[in-house]
Amino acid sequence: MLSNNKIKWIRALEQKKYRKETGCFVVEGEKMVKELLNSSFKTMEVYATQTLFTELQLIAGKKIEIQLVSEPELERISQLKTPNQVLAVAQLPEDSGNIELLTGLSIALDNIQDPGNMGTIIRTAAWFGIKDIFCSPDTVDVYNPKVVQASMGALFKVNLKYVQLESLLIKAKAKNIPIFGTRLNGTNLYKKVLPKDAIILMGNESKGLSVELSSKVDENLMIPSFPAEVANIESLNVSIATAVICAEFRRQMVK
Amino acid sequence: MLSNNKIKWIRALEQKKYRKETGCFVVEGEKMVKELLNSSFKTMEVYATQTLFTELQLIAGKKIEIQLVSEPELERISQLKTPNQVLAVAQLPEDSGNIELLTGLSIALDNIQDPGNMGTIIRTAAWFGIKDIFCSPDTVDVYNPKVVQASMGALFKVNLKYVQLESLLIKAKAKNIPIFGTRLNGTNLYKKVLPKDAIILMGNESKGLSVELSSKVDENLMIPSFPAEVANIESLNVSIATAVICAEFRRQMVK
Repeated sequence: MLSNNKIKWIRALEQKKYRKETGCFVVEGEKMVKELLNSSFKTMEVYATQTLFTELQLIAGKKIEIQLVSEPELERISQLKTPNQVLAVAQLPEDSGNIELLTGLSIALDNIQDPGNMGTIIRTAAWFGIKDIFCSPDTVDVYNPKVVQASMGALFKVNLKYVQLESLLIKAKAKNIPIFGTRLNGTNLYKKVLPKDAIILMGNESKGLSVELSSKVDENLMIPSFPAEVANIESLNVSIATAVICAEFRRQMVK
Repeated sequence: MLSNNKIKWIRALEQKKYRKETGCFVVEGEKMVKELLNSSFKTMEVYATQTLFTELQLIAGKKIEIQLVSEPELERISQLKTPNQVLAVAQLPEDSGNIELLTGLSIALDNIQDPGNMGTIIRTAAWFGIKDIFCSPDTVDVYNPKVVQASMGALFKVNLKYVQLESLLIKAKAKNIPIFGTRLNGTNLYKKVLPKDAIILMGNESKGLSVELSSKVDENLMIPSFPAEVANIESLNVSIATAVICAEFRRQMVK
């Protein structure tokens, strides 16, 4: 039986303020919670209905006790319109703010605001084996329930850091890692021999990159529209552009 | 001054039922309404605040009278949390349900449910010059305000049809237009010489393609993860997968 205080506490985690205060966030749904239990993230609490109870006990082992809840109880703690058999509370990973820039491909995000875009970028990064995603401090909180949901478990597979992107880019320059932005008059993505090490820097949905960051870009790439001369629309969605660019980096690496 | 009846009528257009009944849908925001006025869609009403009033009058010309509203009035008719200077009511385009399958690249969507995904796919299709998008009858309504918004005006640049996809695929076969699906064990997208004419068939976010449609696919494509052997996650978001596939079709066409 869940106490009213506990219900209130879990529901409060919808808000960034309380996530920061408590160091916790919510993960919902069978797939997501299974990914969580198999990840390096610390699981604090798991509430499951009868349907998943035994299965999750087996997965969790001695790591964490699964608490049985009724469907109405789950509904009361869930942040979803249609609660999904299980809800877990996980510990926010530590983020020292230290920038450790490794070789390989990284993504840097300047002020991405839409939770769906953010979750989708994380999912795409995991697919293309991109370990590090650096977010500017004003980027949407990745532990926002909508981002967690849109990432489909990929959140537990990448390293996410909130850092001053200016400092990151200075570090990249010191290490000779090229920084790629995107621009409509940039280099045709498919005419460029792409390096193995790079930072793909993507900007805000409506404003693009800040002027300061733009000035640190080594080369802007352009995803050619079709036909190339007359684009029907002004731009692609930021998560789509990120994916098409990552896909081309990887295509060139393995071909 | 907007009457209460008019306000109620516009707000009702949030619901598919009323859009069907009235044959109208709502378009909001400067960029979107400008695209609408420059499109072949019929604009029925335009409500603008002082900020955009004169500019929109110039664009609309004799086509349609712009009605001046106050910001509080706009708030009352808007479907957005933050109303955006202008709202238009447009006529739903006619959809006879007839299937006219042209050569070139088309997209067919089986039961896509998320409005954000749908809008993003439309935007991506417009970028890559894909004129025809065929949707199964159970796909989310593209005149849903969230889809309209996510399409960023691209809705006015592509042909959208709700059709029985089975009939479409039979037509494609009769015309020798190959049908491509996606599957994790499909052909590596980058190892395949892609044809100029094709249907890219994408399935529901969680269930994928229906069995009936799957059986009509000529070849399944796979977007290789990186590293190819150990995908970190199970799949990509459907709008991302659509974009990466469209991008590769176009890359091969112009290289």
